[in-house]
Amino acid sequence: MPGHVLELPVRWSHLDKAGTIYFPKYFEWFDLAAEEMFRTMGLDWPTLFVRENILGLPIVEATARFILPLFYNDVIRIVTTVGEIRTRAFRLDHQVYRGAELTAKGYVVRIWVQDPKGPQGKMAAAPLPAHIVRALEAYKA
Amino acid sequence: MPGHVLELPVRWSHLDKAGTIYFPKYFEWFDLAAEEMFRTMGLDWPTLFVRENILGLPIVEATARFILPLFYNDVIRIVTTVGEIRTRAFRLDHQVYRGAELTAKGYVVRIWVQDPKGPQGKMAAAPLPAHIVRALEAYKA
Amino acid sequence: MPGHVLELPVRWSHLDKAGTIYFPKYFEWFDLAAEEMFRTMGLDWPTLFVRENILGLPIVEATARFILPLFYNDVIRIVTTVGEIRTRAFRLDHQVYRGAELTAKGYVVRIWVQDPKGPQGKMAAAPLPAHIVRALEAYKA
Amino acid sequence: MPGHVLELPVRWSHLDKAGTIYFPKYFEWFDLAAEEMFRTMGLDWPTLFVRENILGLPIVEATARFILPLFYNDVIRIVTTVGEIRTRAFRLDHQVYRGAELTAKGYVVRIWVQDPKGPQGKMAAAPLPAHIVRALEAYKA
Repeated sequence: MPGHVLELPVRWSHLDKAGTIYFPKYFEWFDLAAEEMFRTMGLDWPTLFVRENILGLPIVEATARFILPLFYNDVIRIVTTVGEIRTRAFRLDHQVYRGAELTAKGYVVRIWVQDPKGPQGKMAAAPLPAHIVRALEAYKA
Repeated sequence: MPGHVLELPVRWSHLDKAGTIYFPKYFEWFDLAAEEMFRTMGLDWPTLFVRENILGLPIVEATARFILPLFYNDVIRIVTTVGEIRTRAFRLDHQVYRGAELTAKGYVVRIWVQDPKGPQGKMAAAPLPAHIVRALEAYKA
Repeated sequence: MPGHVLELPVRWSHLDKAGTIYFPKYFEWFDLAAEEMFRTMGLDWPTLFVRENILGLPIVEATARFILPLFYNDVIRIVTTVGEIRTRAFRLDHQVYRGAELTAKGYVVRIWVQDPKGPQGKMAAAPLPAHIVRALEAYKA
Repeated sequence: MPGHVLELPVRWSHLDKAGTIYFPKYFEWFDLAAEEMFRTMGLDWPTLFVRENILGLPIVEATARFILPLFYNDVIRIVTTVGEIRTRAFRLDHQVYRGAELTAKGYVVRIWVQDPKGPQGKMAAAPLPAHIVRALEAYKA
């Protein structure tokens, strides 16, 4: 099972003055990859958040290693798999490829948070529902 | 030695539809904190890159843990220290505080890269010059 | 009455590969200037939107003219005045200065929109409340 | 002649807390549409800038009118045509459609600027080369 694949070209707005990727972009790409993976599961963010009455899938950890530089016009493939499913959290692993080269990799851990009562109420992680666990398991590496 | 401090308010453009910080923003803040720390050392990015004939300070690793959510109007302090100085790389540690609360922390590893000959030449990490090492040591935790 | 002033430095993340400002940044600055002007009126966005039961202040028109290029380390002042108050809309005029030089100018027209019933209900502009008109008049050029 | 078409989906990162598009995003989309139009002409930005020895295509004016709100999952088509070709500048007109609905429109005026000698040299607009004029004329509305 190869995981979810998101293809993206490197464009002008991704580059800083030195001609390298402004590195927070990679985390924007990881976030978009997660969003697209859930969309292919039939669970786009707004649908998911309303249906499950959750505040979102807050990120508690994010990390990336940058192995090879990217250049303008490179087309990258972000391959996303589910690395771990815990009771109240899950980890998505992202690998960035240019052709066969692995150029970067990272992961993002998200928690399942019920919508709190007040506008700034304490956010508490809740157990992942069984149907979400099942949907995520299809993307385990 | 408390490290370099960058103070920032949480504003509308930092929030996503769920009212939480769009997490790549934290990495933008870490990047700005590094830039400001070097500025206080008299080495703003363009000056540094031209004077040292380097292509930049490419990031090879970036990571963050998010401990407490931030809200609109929160004023955060990003405290940056030098966590490690290697021969060809250094690690900046960033801690995000709201008042006395640690709300997030992370680190970014950067390498010293000589400007390559060609436009897409191989980037090779070079040893950090002694005066850069000395300047960084002043920010060691 | 000089209008509301927001001061900002030009930083690395504002620059594209050509070393010029990525022009959508100016509109981010205009948006932040409007947000800060309302904050000084005691009406930060979340407070305003909840108190007045509005969906926001949707933008119906935005324009900018770029007169002089900006460079790294330039400190700019965005001077914001209220250019026009209509029944259901108002126009904010933004002027960008570097020292005494006018480097850019533009305006943004926003409408007053009541929170619609449904999630994708029709948004209809409503008359600006009298106390909002009074607050805006203090910033007329 | 329908102009250049760029298709984009509305995603989570485009939305602000009110669920509306953060309006500077439209200008990012206009900029990307221009970049893609030049790519289809065989002139991607880096190739164009190096081959023609220009600093870029600095923007001197940008404007947009927002007619209908966009929502998550909307797929938009940005139709770009050349509105005017002057001696040293050209105007790109952008229309944003959701299906048959025109949801926004705007234009961006860019100038042709020779690479100045010094790092912060005066930028002076130069006449558009004949082959660039010819390439742009194919996109006139």
